[in-house]
Amino acid sequence: MISIGDELLRGDTLNTNASWIAKKLSERGMDIYKILVIPDDVDEISSSIRESDEEIIIITGGLGPTPDDMTRKGVADAFGDVLVMREDLLDEMREVHEVTKDAEVMAQLPSKAVPLKNPVGSAPGFVIGDGNRMVFVLPGVPEEMKAMFDDVLRHLEKFGKKKHYVAYIKTAKPEASIASELNEFVRRFPSVKLGSYPKGEQVYIRLSSRDKSELERAVEWLKKQIE
Amino acid sequence: MISIGDELLRGDTLNTNASWIAKKLSERGMDIYKILVIPDDVDEISSSIRESDEEIIIITGGLGPTPDDMTRKGVADAFGDVLVMREDLLDEMREVHEVTKDAEVMAQLPSKAVPLKNPVGSAPGFVIGDGNRMVFVLPGVPEEMKAMFDDVLRHLEKFGKKKHYVAYIKTAKPEASIASELNEFVRRFPSVKLGSYPKGEQVYIRLSSRDKSELERAVEWLKKQIE
Repeated sequence: MISIGDELLRGDTLNTNASWIAKKLSERGMDIYKILVIPDDVDEISSSIRESDEEIIIITGGLGPTPDDMTRKGVADAFGDVLVMREDLLDEMREVHEVTKDAEVMAQLPSKAVPLKNPVGSAPGFVIGDGNRMVFVLPGVPEEMKAMFDDVLRHLEKFGKKKHYVAYIKTAKPEASIASELNEFVRRFPSVKLGSYPKGEQVYIRLSSRDKSELERAVEWLKKQIE
Repeated sequence: MISIGDELLRGDTLNTNASWIAKKLSERGMDIYKILVIPDDVDEISSSIRESDEEIIIITGGLGPTPDDMTRKGVADAFGDVLVMREDLLDEMREVHEVTKDAEVMAQLPSKAVPLKNPVGSAPGFVIGDGNRMVFVLPGVPEEMKAMFDDVLRHLEKFGKKKHYVAYIKTAKPEASIASELNEFVRRFPSVKLGSYPKGEQVYIRLSSRDKSELERAVEWLKKQIE
């Protein structure tokens, strides 16, 4: 995932988009491997895409009409593509409200891109791909991004990744006092992934596995140890 | 900045640490160039540090006592260093409360690291550097991270970067309708950085420059255009 915007790098805006998307994917058993926040800068955008190892990249931000919005150009550069004016999108935008000369830039997409409709705002999103990777590009305004995300999910679910199962155990013991049990757990259940998260006076232990019955055995064992 | 934690990549936890740190630095006229969120994975941590272009990296997360906490090892690997038990830190930890065998791991730091005290929790942070870069490592628990951040600022302020000046203009006009004025602005004031952020019914325009009087001229010009 790549979030684009100087405002995120200054801490003026909390990156709720990344978190919201991560949760949506995680709920469907899909993992995000990396979240990257970068500035509104054409070269940063294109090199971040080119240097990524991932097959699928979701980008938010920088699709507006103002001169600080560089995402369209950055993505086009990453694919060695150019921006072209999509008259069909321009017409659709004009149906909703008046489009000034400078706002027409929002209808310029990389020539190989497939547009994603934006039902609640002006800037269309798009998908662009080649043999190596597929990049989804969505606006940064949360309401617009969310309204368009079902389209992204439909595309992603075609990849049909294997689901994983999740369980949580909560304890009021401090993390340091249960570390030996957790170490024993990791040795005993190598196929179950463990995460331990202190929040306030509680520790939340998250267990996940692709093997449902192994997860159940693991949960039972650990509960017995730390109760 | 590198935030470490599977919980961030699942959207279970909002990355408020990155945002808080970005704001603190931005208020002092320092810029963050990139925020990276990666999993609790030794190789990911070490390669992310090695592949970074930045001179200064701030890391949060993964310093706890449980087996999913990999940051100490990942940072040590990045510098070709090894973890050593710091008996002095262990003694300090024992003064506050009982330290179990498994929790002793929190006192293991890279041999070249300088510890940063944690006044509100167990896990010490640290700084480690070589000729190319300096890495600050802080716990992920927000109260602990915040309590230790003044130490980081003291180190950073020695670098004495040049300050920049900031101004905001707010307008109720839609972004698309002022795009031509903003384009003209960028041509007219090339040394003033512009950001345009729609929030609800308002658009916030952020202008920043290292030249205070140029910024004042720019603000005055733009206000006149969009009023």
